[in-house]
Amino acid sequence: LNALGKHLLIELYDCSPGALDSLETVSATMVEAANSVSATIINVAEHKFQPLGVSVVVMIAESHLSIHTWPEHGYAAVDLFTCSDTMSPSVVVDLIREAFGSKRVTTMEVHRGIIAPVLTGSSA
Amino acid sequence: LNALGKHLLIELYDCSPGALDSLETVSATMVEAANSVSATIINVAEHKFQPLGVSVVVMIAESHLSIHTWPEHGYAAVDLFTCSDTMSPSVVVDLIREAFGSKRVTTMEVHRGIIAPVLTGSSA
Repeated sequence: LNALGKHLLIELYDCSPGALDSLETVSATMVEAANSVSATIINVAEHKFQPLGVSVVVMIAESHLSIHTWPEHGYAAVDLFTCSDTMSPSVVVDLIREAFGSKRVTTMEVHRGIIAPVLTGSSA
Repeated sequence: LNALGKHLLIELYDCSPGALDSLETVSATMVEAANSVSATIINVAEHKFQPLGVSVVVMIAESHLSIHTWPEHGYAAVDLFTCSDTMSPSVVVDLIREAFGSKRVTTMEVHRGIIAPVLTGSSA
């Protein structure tokens, strides 16, 4: 079975609340993360919530990279959805873990769009 | 245990390729889906791929709603990430299923940001 997309759900706990509440830090980190895997950035949408929290969604030609932060809980949810086989998600995980000072990270990979392979005829 | 976010991963198979390749249809459907659950739209990013495919990401105050389509496979991946308990995801699923003529839909709900509750003291 082939998957059209790979979707990595990243949970970052015990982060620096200050980093998670800085729109500038979060946005720069997500753009750097996209660049670290040579993604082609199409659009960056960002929003600062009051009093706390930031959302940034980076639309890339290979799908998207998003983050929503809860500084009051030291938590951020990051999604890396790609349709490229050549990207190395671990580079992104390491980069954002360091940027936000996360002491505990969990990840889950979900294969999106499971398409049955086209069976070719066999002469055997 | 409490979750800060609810993330619904929706797989739409056997869709109408024409609908999936129309930026206008896909974008309007995603905005309608956001409105159907009374989400507050912050930003809509959209992109048409050549020759086939569309990406739309709707940033909402409650997190995000995204879609990536593969018309050549009749498939679309939709994500509904919310931090609101009052939203009814089934409304969104029904709406997009109908808009794209999908004959097979699977969903997976992931709880994001599992935070242990603060235990209050007991006098017992």
